[in-house]
Amino acid sequence: MNIPAIAIHGGSGTIVFDAKNSELKNEYLKALNHALDEGFEMLKEGLSATDCVCKTVMILEDCNLFNAGKGSVFTAKGLHEMDAAIMDGKTLNAGAVAGLRGVKNPVLVAWDVLQNTPFVMIAGEEAIEYARHKNFKFESDSYFFSQLRYNQWHEIRGDDIMKLDHSGEGAKFGTVGAVAVDAEGNVSAATSTGGMTNKAWGRVGDSPLIGSGTYANNKTCAISCTGHGEYFIRGVVAYDVSCRMEYGGMKLEQAANHVIHKKLKRVGGEGGLIAVDSSGNICMPFNTGGMYRGMKNKMDSFTRIL
Amino acid sequence: MNIPAIAIHGGSGTIVFDAKNSELKNEYLKALNHALDEGFEMLKEGLSATDCVCKTVMILEDCNLFNAGKGSVFTAKGLHEMDAAIMDGKTLNAGAVAGLRGVKNPVLVAWDVLQNTPFVMIAGEEAIEYARHKNFKFESDSYFFSQLRYNQWHEIRGDDIMKLDHSGEGAKFGTVGAVAVDAEGNVSAATSTGGMTNKAWGRVGDSPLIGSGTYANNKTCAISCTGHGEYFIRGVVAYDVSCRMEYGGMKLEQAANHVIHKKLKRVGGEGGLIAVDSSGNICMPFNTGGMYRGMKNKMDSFTRIL
Repeated sequence: MNIPAIAIHGGSGTIVFDAKNSELKNEYLKALNHALDEGFEMLKEGLSATDCVCKTVMILEDCNLFNAGKGSVFTAKGLHEMDAAIMDGKTLNAGAVAGLRGVKNPVLVAWDVLQNTPFVMIAGEEAIEYARHKNFKFESDSYFFSQLRYNQWHEIRGDDIMKLDHSGEGAKFGTVGAVAVDAEGNVSAATSTGGMTNKAWGRVGDSPLIGSGTYANNKTCAISCTGHGEYFIRGVVAYDVSCRMEYGGMKLEQAANHVIHKKLKRVGGEGGLIAVDSSGNICMPFNTGGMYRGMKNKMDSFTRIL
Repeated sequence: MNIPAIAIHGGSGTIVFDAKNSELKNEYLKALNHALDEGFEMLKEGLSATDCVCKTVMILEDCNLFNAGKGSVFTAKGLHEMDAAIMDGKTLNAGAVAGLRGVKNPVLVAWDVLQNTPFVMIAGEEAIEYARHKNFKFESDSYFFSQLRYNQWHEIRGDDIMKLDHSGEGAKFGTVGAVAVDAEGNVSAATSTGGMTNKAWGRVGDSPLIGSGTYANNKTCAISCTGHGEYFIRGVVAYDVSCRMEYGGMKLEQAANHVIHKKLKRVGGEGGLIAVDSSGNICMPFNTGGMYRGMKNKMDSFTRIL
C-alpha cells in the first residue's frame, strides 16, 4: 500500500523536443510538476480522491499549454468546444459534459452534474445554459485564443477532413486527466479536453464518455485516457481495463498494458492512459511517441514526456 | 446454431393493461410483430445484421406507440430530442447521435456517422446541421405531436424535477432497440430513444453511448438496453455483459441475467436489455414489471409485454 497517490496526463502523441524548443519542454514539465504538487498536497490534507482529481484537472485547464480549458483548440467554425467527465470509484457516481463553449472549467460543471443532478451526462446548448444557470465562470474568446492553436487551425481550415491537434513538430492528441487514490483507498478519475483542431459536426470524443475515456471503481482502478478518441470509444477502453482486472484476474499493470500495447495497437488506435488502483499502484502506458505525464506518492515523484 | 435471428424491444417498465385498454395492448403487440416480421424477412433475404437492425429500428421509430422517432416524448421546453446508436459486431465500427430535433429517423443518421465519417458520435446543433447537410428527412412539430405525450408532459411541466416517460397507467421507460445475427454469424445492435418526458439541460441517456446502452461484438454478443439510463451508464451495462462473457467465461444468458437481476437490481437500476450471440442464442431479461419485446428465428417467434 502506497497511498495516497496521484497521476496526471496532458495528452499523448509524437512529441518532438530539440535544442530550439527546449524551453517549451521545460514549461511543460513545470506545468505538470505544479499540478502534481498541488494535487498531492490536497490528498495529504485529507481531500477525497474526487475532490483532488477535479481540482487538479482545473489547474491543467487553466494552463494554455494543454488542449483543455484555456488551451482548447479551434473547431471547424473557429470555436472552442470542450468536453469533460469525472467519476467517483467509491460510489460509482459520475458526471459528464459535452460541447461546452466559453466555460472556464468544464470539469467543474461535470462535477456539479455528478453532485447536484439526477443525470450523468448533459450536452450542447442546454448544457451551456445549465452552466450559466449555475453561475459557473465564463470567459470571452480572447481568453481561449492562442496564436499557436490559431495557426494550427488556419493551416487546415476549409479542408474537408478533420486534422488532429498539433503541438511542437509532431502530431499530438490533447486532453488532460488526473487519477488519484486518497488516504481512505478511494479512487477517482477526471478527464477534460478541447477536442480536435478543426473538428466538425459536434463530434464527441471519448473523454466525456463514462467507460471509454474515463472510469473509476474502487474494486479495480481509476482511469483517464488520451488519444484518438474513436478507437477508445469502440474499445470501451477505460472499462475494458477494469473488466480485465475484475473478471479476467489481471493486475492493473498487465490489464492497462495489454489494452494499450496489444488491443489498441492491433487496430491502429493511438494513445495512452493513466491508471491507479486502491493500493496506490500506478500505470501510465502509451503507444505513441510520447505522453505528457507524471505521478507522485510519498516515496516517489516524476514527470516525463518521452 | 439457430441463425439468422432477431430480437427487438420497445421499452421496459411497469406496464398495466386491463379490460379498458386491451385494444392498446393489441396495438403494441401488432406493432412489435410487424417490426419483427420485417426484420426477420431482411435477414432471410441475406441482409447484414447491421442493415437489419437499422431498418428494424426505423420501423419502430415510425410507430407513434414507442418513445423514439415519431412517438418521442416532450422535453422540459416542449421539444422532441432524440438519441440513437448502432454498432457492427464484425468490424466494431459504431455510430451515434445525441440531441437531434426534427429528424424523422435518428438511427439512420447514426448509421451514416458509422459509414461516412471518421467519428463515432456527434451531438447537438451541429449534429442537426449534419443531418440537414446530408439531406436526411426532417418532419414538422405536428408529426411528433401526440395528445397522450403532450398530456404527460403538461401534467408535470414546470416542476423542477424530471419525470419519466409514462405509458398506460404505470411508469415506463421508452426507447426502442433491435439486435440481430445474420446468416454469416455477424451480430449488430441499434437503439433509439426520445429520452425522458420533461428532461432538461440537454441530458443524454445511455442509448447513444457505445458500451452503455448499445454494444456489439462477434466474439460475445450484440446488446440494446432500455431503462433508467443513468444506472446503465454508471454500470457500462452493455459492455459489462460482453466482458463477463469474454473475460469471465459466462454464457450469454448467465451474463445478461446477472447484470439485470443482480448488479443493476442491487443499486435500484430499473430496466432490461435484449441480446443475441453469434450462434443465435437470445436473452431478454428485465427487472421491471414488463418490457415490450419479441424474438424471431426459423424455429420460433413470439412477442410479449409482461
